[in-house]
Amino acid sequence: MTSIDAAADLAARAMAGERRALASVLTELERQSTLVPQLIRALMPNLGRATTVGFTGPPGAGKSTLVNAIIAMARLQGKRVGVIAVDPSSPLSGGAILGDRVRMTAALDDDGVFVRSLASRGALGGLTPAAVRMIDAFDAAGFDLVLIETVGTGQSEIDIAGIADVRVVLAAPGLGDDMQAMKAGLLEIADIVVVNKADRPGAHATALQIQGALSLRAERSRVPVLETSAVSGSGVAELLAGLDRIGAIRRAEGIQARRRRRALYLIECAARDLVTERLASLAGERRGDLADRILKGETTAGAAAAKLLSGRHDP
Amino acid sequence: MTSIDAAADLAARAMAGERRALASVLTELERQSTLVPQLIRALMPNLGRATTVGFTGPPGAGKSTLVNAIIAMARLQGKRVGVIAVDPSSPLSGGAILGDRVRMTAALDDDGVFVRSLASRGALGGLTPAAVRMIDAFDAAGFDLVLIETVGTGQSEIDIAGIADVRVVLAAPGLGDDMQAMKAGLLEIADIVVVNKADRPGAHATALQIQGALSLRAERSRVPVLETSAVSGSGVAELLAGLDRIGAIRRAEGIQARRRRRALYLIECAARDLVTERLASLAGERRGDLADRILKGETTAGAAAAKLLSGRHDP
Repeated sequence: MTSIDAAADLAARAMAGERRALASVLTELERQSTLVPQLIRALMPNLGRATTVGFTGPPGAGKSTLVNAIIAMARLQGKRVGVIAVDPSSPLSGGAILGDRVRMTAALDDDGVFVRSLASRGALGGLTPAAVRMIDAFDAAGFDLVLIETVGTGQSEIDIAGIADVRVVLAAPGLGDDMQAMKAGLLEIADIVVVNKADRPGAHATALQIQGALSLRAERSRVPVLETSAVSGSGVAELLAGLDRIGAIRRAEGIQARRRRRALYLIECAARDLVTERLASLAGERRGDLADRILKGETTAGAAAAKLLSGRHDP
Repeated sequence: MTSIDAAADLAARAMAGERRALASVLTELERQSTLVPQLIRALMPNLGRATTVGFTGPPGAGKSTLVNAIIAMARLQGKRVGVIAVDPSSPLSGGAILGDRVRMTAALDDDGVFVRSLASRGALGGLTPAAVRMIDAFDAAGFDLVLIETVGTGQSEIDIAGIADVRVVLAAPGLGDDMQAMKAGLLEIADIVVVNKADRPGAHATALQIQGALSLRAERSRVPVLETSAVSGSGVAELLAGLDRIGAIRRAEGIQARRRRRALYLIECAARDLVTERLASLAGERRGDLADRILKGETTAGAAAAKLLSGRHDP
């Protein structure tokens, strides 16, 4: 069997619901193997059904437990759920974050849930380009929801803003004096705001504060603010209804537009990586000279960057 | 008076301690005015004394109140403190975050504190290049500490990692199930970790968890984990001592190396902005074609990015 046949066969079996084949497809995509072009081509006719939902929010807001609660509720509604979880792969954590998830999924013994954890890109938690391609695999394999759970720091927030169909921003109760920061940053990218841990004191007050902040801006005033408790399950059905409603609007844009947006984001990421590499590859002395001229005001960072990008600073 | 004389005069007065002149210098730097090169040159001989401390951490961790407590304690020790506060300038917030700070500073009627708030760059809170130049103004004007307070989301975390001499990462008590995320992300960039709101239940347990996580990695095991209460002031003196200690190590690297690092970071930021602009400036059709070829696996995002950077996709 040629590699084209092999890829087509693997994709066909994944699309027919074979879990092991899906696992293999995801692995090939993750490894950026030579099969990637053939796999993507084979998956393409089946794309367009899934809604991709990104979850972000500060550590402590309860992203993992909320995602678990959504999985359970979505299964009750007969929806199939794929999860791409950015797994802190750092030796610091050893990946234990997914322990509960894996146990839960195993207990379900359920073909309607598939969890794949991925190493993050860089200390500040970025999604790999491979993670973005995996959305297609889940979509083509008939999953209704693809949940992307980030670590909620730095790059991961930026990635979610660029990639997901629906962006869910979690807040923890009792934001207090940092409400303004929350408003100015994360609320700008939210399609739905969730105050999780609604069982805790201060949750409702936090939701009201966020609602108040959103109401000040016409284009943000319709962003729903939901209170959920992943523990009791309260509010989770409403959240799923919100995901369905916004997901339907996004799907109406067509799969082409949504995938193009993700592809352009991938180019942007790759370009940024190239910039960083080029700067790192300059000889130390040259790099120092460039920095000095900026510091002295002899050139601007923008002009230096343009030269760098045009390759005129390469040896 | 020529503009060179004007810039030199303004810088000299700022360095002599004239608040109004410092305010003007900061404003010129913020506006990227034509005086910038002359100002920077005039400030240069006086650089090297200040330690730049960046604060990041999730909304709700209490960054503003901690920074206020540090200002008060540093003043008791006779230190002069400049603050660059990323002010959520969005209409959503109206910048009220700084209300307490401004009132406090006014109440002090104190020449040893100077607070400048700045609009953030983008929804996810990035520092402007102007903010980075302002560090020099505070340094040359004799401030011992330059505190950079971010909104703690997305780009601002990445900026702090790239710019500050000492990076302070705040955590809130009771991180619970998101401890692993915290570990893998923010802890990687921290020079000092602070569990603020130490008066709240769970603070000590959170500190112990973080210490445990750090102890697993040799190169991170010496990162101090402090418990502070901005309300009672407990732990703030220890935090200042930590800033002094790490600041002294950084200052020993020399001002040249530290400023070069910041300048290179500015180039990187400018290059990334250029990449984003170039992608946006492609004709819609061309942009769509590029995206489609990536999605079909005919080219990679990296190859597309390289073409984009070389200008070969410009008309």
